[in-house]
Amino acid sequence: MKAYVYVSLKKSVLDPQGKTIHGALKKMGYRGIDDLRQGKYFEIALDDSVSREDAQAEVERIAREVLTNPVIEEYSFTIDG
Amino acid sequence: MKAYVYVSLKKSVLDPQGKTIHGALKKMGYRGIDDLRQGKYFEIALDDSVSREDAQAEVERIAREVLTNPVIEEYSFTIDG
Repeated sequence: MKAYVYVSLKKSVLDPQGKTIHGALKKMGYRGIDDLRQGKYFEIALDDSVSREDAQAEVERIAREVLTNPVIEEYSFTIDG
Repeated sequence: MKAYVYVSLKKSVLDPQGKTIHGALKKMGYRGIDDLRQGKYFEIALDDSVSREDAQAEVERIAREVLTNPVIEEYSFTIDG
C-alpha cells in the first residue's frame, strides 16, 4: 500500500522559491502562467500487514505531527493500493 | 485551470532526506512503514485563456525542461479544472 502526502505553504504565506521559478519561466518565454507555488511531496510505502483504516489514521498523524509545520504549512494525502 | 507537477528522485537514486525521515519515524514509534521518499511538488495556476491541449503541452515542457533534473529525477503531472 502506498500513501502520498502533499505539504504546501498556506495561501497566506509568501513563497519566494515559487516566485523565483515563476519569474524564470516568464523570462524563458512561457506564457499563460498566473502563479506557481512549490511544496513537498512524500511517497510512503506501507507494510501490507497494516489495514487500510490503520494506514489512513497513521498517515494522517505522520502528516500532521511530523511532515507539516502547522504555523505556515498545510497538508493533504491520498492512499492507494 | 490548475496543474500539479510531482518531481521525485529516480528509484535508483539514493534519497538521504527520505531515509532520515524514515529513521526518525521509526524512533518515534511509527510502525508499518517500509520506505519513505521525498520529492517536490509544484502547483501551477494557468491563465484561463489557455486551452486544455496547450496547457497539457506547456506544463509537460516546463516539467521536463525546468523543474526536473533528468539525470536523477523523474516527473509526473495532472491538470484539472
